[in-house]
Amino acid sequence: MAGDLTAYLKSQRELVDEALDRFLPSDEAGGQILKAMRYSLFAGGKRLRPILCLAAAQAVGGDPQRVMYCACALEMIHTYSLIHDDLPGMDDDDFRRGVPTNHKVFGEGLAILAGDGLLTQAMVLLTDPGVIGDLEPWRALTAAHLVMRAAGREGMVGGQAADLLAERQEPDLATVQFIHALKTGALISASLEAGALLAGGDPEQVTLLSRYGRRVGLAFQIADDLLNLTGDAAALGKAIGSDEARGKMTYPAVQGPAQARETGQRLVDEAARLLEPLGEPAWPLRALAAYIMARTH
Amino acid sequence: MAGDLTAYLKSQRELVDEALDRFLPSDEAGGQILKAMRYSLFAGGKRLRPILCLAAAQAVGGDPQRVMYCACALEMIHTYSLIHDDLPGMDDDDFRRGVPTNHKVFGEGLAILAGDGLLTQAMVLLTDPGVIGDLEPWRALTAAHLVMRAAGREGMVGGQAADLLAERQEPDLATVQFIHALKTGALISASLEAGALLAGGDPEQVTLLSRYGRRVGLAFQIADDLLNLTGDAAALGKAIGSDEARGKMTYPAVQGPAQARETGQRLVDEAARLLEPLGEPAWPLRALAAYIMARTH
Repeated sequence: MAGDLTAYLKSQRELVDEALDRFLPSDEAGGQILKAMRYSLFAGGKRLRPILCLAAAQAVGGDPQRVMYCACALEMIHTYSLIHDDLPGMDDDDFRRGVPTNHKVFGEGLAILAGDGLLTQAMVLLTDPGVIGDLEPWRALTAAHLVMRAAGREGMVGGQAADLLAERQEPDLATVQFIHALKTGALISASLEAGALLAGGDPEQVTLLSRYGRRVGLAFQIADDLLNLTGDAAALGKAIGSDEARGKMTYPAVQGPAQARETGQRLVDEAARLLEPLGEPAWPLRALAAYIMARTH
Repeated sequence: MAGDLTAYLKSQRELVDEALDRFLPSDEAGGQILKAMRYSLFAGGKRLRPILCLAAAQAVGGDPQRVMYCACALEMIHTYSLIHDDLPGMDDDDFRRGVPTNHKVFGEGLAILAGDGLLTQAMVLLTDPGVIGDLEPWRALTAAHLVMRAAGREGMVGGQAADLLAERQEPDLATVQFIHALKTGALISASLEAGALLAGGDPEQVTLLSRYGRRVGLAFQIADDLLNLTGDAAALGKAIGSDEARGKMTYPAVQGPAQARETGQRLVDEAARLLEPLGEPAWPLRALAAYIMARTH
């Protein structure tokens, strides 16, 4: 059924949270490092990347539960990147999702290690024969590979480095697009590709979802930038206007808020149209595209 | 031929350096982040882990060149851990291998990202279908998995966290053993296991090399601790006595230098004996075991 997006997101988020707790269980013997890893992993994320991965599996007619391990790995990678981005040597943020950042609670050394631990744990999961089970090994290998490329120098790491170096520089559209495509777009796109690939999707379906992902990822970042500029601090759980104060390169900074909103809307419209060949099982992805820009008002 | 260890190490080191340069090539378009990654990767390491991986492949009768991608991934993981360990939030070291540490050259933010980038690049390599080629996919997956477990919370990340938390505590043997086994032993052992597994080794051979690796890894750390205590700063390229000054938990601190040296010698003797079933092709591993403690005099 083309259903209720809010109910869908809630139920998927609960499934992801349960699975994350299973893949990185609490354990007294795990010490401070495990506590630090779990602190940020369970600090109330939207679980966007895992949900996109599960929805992509469904969209190609596969079983979302079979790709849950990959969905959880994606959230670990996302969380690692937030912990490291918040460090004093990077963005130096004290709050994230309404709670103190990892290094404010556990200290800088342990926060660096908690990030390293989550990134590594993601790879442990993505290559675990016991978890992969009867999936074709080449699909598991390829999914792990494309997720890691999106996380690395050609993706998130490269984007964050460019972002760091671009602070206080004159903003221009090409740089903003480059940074966003790498920093956010790459992993979101990989979430969809990996979900589709692991669930048995054919190359055309994987490509189509990758193209959807690039548009949705960029729109999502524009929406985030707009919220940072104009949103409600209490609802966001972080300071408003912090990007502006830091001279961060964002779409609103380059295009102005009105045109940035238009760009975002165009991207999500394109993304939704791309899904047409997938029909009914792709309804959550279609509804998600529509929702992204709606939340900026 | 049971050959000349010095010549063997030199030729293998050159092969590894060439391969690293191929797997992470210099590229002007790669920007500062690639420069930072390559700066530490080519700062003159001994390439111990890659060489162990290649030697393990040879020891089980396989082709070392086929596991070179894994050898390079291991060196990237090792280098990432050095960059992060040196950060101000961790050990706060200004020099490593005789040159300024990554964050002294590129700044803290980029150094964190250079570490993240190398760890991720290692995983990109370990799962790259184009590089794995005609190796059996389950061997490639399992090798990636065991390397990542050794890098993560159950290995290096866990060991570094325990090390961080143990500073300025009363040293005791159990804690020292735990820290060393995780921080150094796990990846060294995984280097041998992965090399043997990828080269077609059978389960008994892999287990045997893993046991060799645990002993050699521990002995290697003891030798390092002894050198830090008594060695020559110019030869080491870092300050002497820095572990002691920082109240680091080391074997010499717990057992005294003389007994620590005895422990190390016992470990490498055991390690060499373990190799007997592998015969002639294992000569470099046998010679390496003997060399480890010799360099502490």
